[in-house]
Amino acid sequence: MNIFTQIREFCINLTDSRTFKNAIVLIILFNSIVLGLITSETIYTKFGDFLELILSISVVIFTIEIILRIIAKGWRFFLNGWNIFDFLLVAIAFLPESGAAITFRIFRVLRALRMVSSLKKLRHIVSAILVSAPHVFWAAVLLLIIFYIFGIIGQNLFHEAFPQWFGTLGDTMYTLFQVTTLESWSMGIARPVMQVYPWAWCYFVPFVMMSSYIVLNVVVGVVVNATSDLSDDDDIKDVKEKMKIKKVTNPEIMQEINELKSMIKHLEEKLDKNESK
Amino acid sequence: MNIFTQIREFCINLTDSRTFKNAIVLIILFNSIVLGLITSETIYTKFGDFLELILSISVVIFTIEIILRIIAKGWRFFLNGWNIFDFLLVAIAFLPESGAAITFRIFRVLRALRMVSSLKKLRHIVSAILVSAPHVFWAAVLLLIIFYIFGIIGQNLFHEAFPQWFGTLGDTMYTLFQVTTLESWSMGIARPVMQVYPWAWCYFVPFVMMSSYIVLNVVVGVVVNATSDLSDDDDIKDVKEKMKIKKVTNPEIMQEINELKSMIKHLEEKLDKNESK
Amino acid sequence: MNIFTQIREFCINLTDSRTFKNAIVLIILFNSIVLGLITSETIYTKFGDFLELILSISVVIFTIEIILRIIAKGWRFFLNGWNIFDFLLVAIAFLPESGAAITFRIFRVLRALRMVSSLKKLRHIVSAILVSAPHVFWAAVLLLIIFYIFGIIGQNLFHEAFPQWFGTLGDTMYTLFQVTTLESWSMGIARPVMQVYPWAWCYFVPFVMMSSYIVLNVVVGVVVNATSDLSDDDDIKDVKEKMKIKKVTNPEIMQEINELKSMIKHLEEKLDKNESK
Amino acid sequence: MNIFTQIREFCINLTDSRTFKNAIVLIILFNSIVLGLITSETIYTKFGDFLELILSISVVIFTIEIILRIIAKGWRFFLNGWNIFDFLLVAIAFLPESGAAITFRIFRVLRALRMVSSLKKLRHIVSAILVSAPHVFWAAVLLLIIFYIFGIIGQNLFHEAFPQWFGTLGDTMYTLFQVTTLESWSMGIARPVMQVYPWAWCYFVPFVMMSSYIVLNVVVGVVVNATSDLSDDDDIKDVKEKMKIKKVTNPEIMQEINELKSMIKHLEEKLDKNESK
Repeated sequence: MNIFTQIREFCINLTDSRTFKNAIVLIILFNSIVLGLITSETIYTKFGDFLELILSISVVIFTIEIILRIIAKGWRFFLNGWNIFDFLLVAIAFLPESGAAITFRIFRVLRALRMVSSLKKLRHIVSAILVSAPHVFWAAVLLLIIFYIFGIIGQNLFHEAFPQWFGTLGDTMYTLFQVTTLESWSMGIARPVMQVYPWAWCYFVPFVMMSSYIVLNVVVGVVVNATSDLSDDDDIKDVKEKMKIKKVTNPEIMQEINELKSMIKHLEEKLDKNESK
Repeated sequence: MNIFTQIREFCINLTDSRTFKNAIVLIILFNSIVLGLITSETIYTKFGDFLELILSISVVIFTIEIILRIIAKGWRFFLNGWNIFDFLLVAIAFLPESGAAITFRIFRVLRALRMVSSLKKLRHIVSAILVSAPHVFWAAVLLLIIFYIFGIIGQNLFHEAFPQWFGTLGDTMYTLFQVTTLESWSMGIARPVMQVYPWAWCYFVPFVMMSSYIVLNVVVGVVVNATSDLSDDDDIKDVKEKMKIKKVTNPEIMQEINELKSMIKHLEEKLDKNESK
Repeated sequence: MNIFTQIREFCINLTDSRTFKNAIVLIILFNSIVLGLITSETIYTKFGDFLELILSISVVIFTIEIILRIIAKGWRFFLNGWNIFDFLLVAIAFLPESGAAITFRIFRVLRALRMVSSLKKLRHIVSAILVSAPHVFWAAVLLLIIFYIFGIIGQNLFHEAFPQWFGTLGDTMYTLFQVTTLESWSMGIARPVMQVYPWAWCYFVPFVMMSSYIVLNVVVGVVVNATSDLSDDDDIKDVKEKMKIKKVTNPEIMQEINELKSMIKHLEEKLDKNESK
Repeated sequence: MNIFTQIREFCINLTDSRTFKNAIVLIILFNSIVLGLITSETIYTKFGDFLELILSISVVIFTIEIILRIIAKGWRFFLNGWNIFDFLLVAIAFLPESGAAITFRIFRVLRALRMVSSLKKLRHIVSAILVSAPHVFWAAVLLLIIFYIFGIIGQNLFHEAFPQWFGTLGDTMYTLFQVTTLESWSMGIARPVMQVYPWAWCYFVPFVMMSSYIVLNVVVGVVVNATSDLSDDDDIKDVKEKMKIKKVTNPEIMQEINELKSMIKHLEEKLDKNESK
């Protein structure tokens, strides 16, 4: 038990130290650079084995780091979203390699994402982005309903003449996503369709307007959310400021009233003396 | 009369219950999924009859639901925009099928829109979007005037050399809409036109600038509207907050003044006694 | 003199009346629709003479309207920007037709712009847009300098291999304008250039980033300007609100103090009586 | 020493004078125009020697100007970022011409950038843009990590079939930059890739969404930063306003209390008299 407490304290001190954290950031960075280097065929043929060795060592280091942090924090480790994020990114290294080599490589690359959780500023930005997520989620649901309805209509209308764009509901919704990003929507999609169905602009122009307008409202929602958070903070600051002003000005009146009191008391005492005479 | 009241009360209780509302949401969702499934030719050939049956049953259920809600609310049902929205989406199922099968199918798909009115969050987003509608409407009128004038000029200038883009006023305005979305405006439209009329950039560059600037002002209008609503609410909250502070600080002064009063009263009583002596 | 005053009063009453203003709006609208109709060759061959007659009558009516308004307002007519705007749009009808028929037609179309000055809401939007103009002007100067420098560099680098895009400084700046709108910048321009000069991305990617960033700052400037105007108004409203609260709460204290005064006065009177006894 | 002080004072007066500053702005403008003119082959063949002479004279003038300003301000000259900016732009004229003629020409063009530092309004806009730089920097780091991870994945997945877009990590990241600007992402890149790998939309659609969302958050960050700066100023103004109101209303209460005091004093004096009697 004594030894266990000592180990735990050692882990806490180690994982909390700046040096340890910086070393991990450097290893993540180094690991990421190596992942980039091995995409080059020339480098891979020459130094492939060496670089793969480095990647394997990195995994070992990351695993030890996570174990140390779990020992240090106990079960509370899993209460923090970023810890779970780190844990999962390391854990995927130990999944059975059932898939193809390509899947394995892709999962390996995800470890570069640990850069996000290990730099404070990036964690802040991601948190700020997640704050606006609920609003964006519901606007996305609305957009999805619009996509779905226009998708079914579009598939019904155009699937015969343009099977590559409107063949299935999936194809149509991908096409509508492209139209929403305004990429080649007219020259690439709408004009060819209008050659066959001249009234097709009645389908595309309203869709472009509606989807742009909803996306605009998502943007506005995010801006207003962010500004609102800001003004909430300001409000509190503002009210506190006012309280301080109150504290500054009230005493003056209080003092005056106290003087009044003492004057009346003085008067009363004199009256008492008068009376007692 | 007694029976009618009982029926009405039953309808009110039923249509207000969570279970009823959730069941309707599920049927809308199910109905929407089926509408999506029958776009696939394979599925339609195999299960077409069954899926069409489900759609017909859905219509019956929706009709009964609307009737129950009308009984529950009476004529007040039609005072709420969302109720009218639901009513119309169900009512179109009973229009005489004068048009082609394609029109019938399209109208049927619109029932998936009921998802918007049956989810509170989506109703909120749509309401928020409609709030900015008046500002957007007038900006759209301004944009339309710009489109109209540039449309007539463009048709006059380019209709001979480029009949597919500038043949009629309608074609020209569609082309200008495309240019406003910045889609292929230069490589697709302006550069080919400039091959024939080298000065054509004097037409396109100002139009791109003007239309982008007006659209930007629509965006700004929506953002500022939304922020303004927010700060209005804040104002009220703010003023209330101040009132509360007043309520907190005023009593102190009031109490002091009351003490002063009682002291003076006490003094007076003494004087009275003095006098009476 | 008496007659002149009568005429003037008549003009003032006439031009200020709702009926007169609405009639003019209708004629502007009618005039604009006719301008649109004669773009159609079929309609022009059939009703051309009749429609041209209507346009000529409109010009006469507009001229009379402007003369009446000048009589009504005197030289003060020219103090209002919108009046000058109306005056110029009508005056261009009397320019000597030196140019080609096409120029004449284009100038004629500009009269549809009077719709903007005759509808209050549109005047408001245009005024709001002009408010942000100074900020946008200076950002545009900055953008122009960036364009100029990148233009000279781009012309020097690429004019030999791509004379159609980078042949002259003018061509290059048009190409850069297209790149700023992000239209086909990569597939259309940058990738072909990179086939010849593989390092060309060092020119395009920074330019896309810089120009987008400056344009973003124009947007932000316009938003913040608009929000700032809003919060200024709110400030004044806010302070007034506070003054009202003060007016509501101060009297209470004042009343208490007045009661105190009257109590002390009462006390004094008693003392006086005491003394006089 | 006396002469040196005189020279310095002369330099201070000269470089601070409006005439001197305006003259320099004019020479910068003139220099920039000449730089533009010599891009035209026709003009260069005719007036090349003359225009090159003007450019050389400009460099001499700029050098003298910088020397005068350094004499006027001493070593404090280098404390101001804009001074260093001016110094460097002039200094590059004296670099040894090791590179090709093209490099020399490009560096020469950069002197047109001095327009930014010599116009107050442009300096302000650039400062405002730099204020939002830290936020944008970290969002760019986040975007870079996303680019890097998607880049390695994309290169692994598609480099065999599409070497021109996904051949190396660099190619892939350039392609992803293009996709982020939404330029031809679907018709140009994603659809051709989906012909070979039908599931490729699982790579492109999430990437388009993520990168757009992060870019949106950069925009929002810049807007909120700018609005926050604004509201901070407002806060201070607001609090001051309140202090002023306090100053306006407090005296009334103070005066009342002072009247109360004098009344009580008066009472006391009377009592004293009473007593002394």
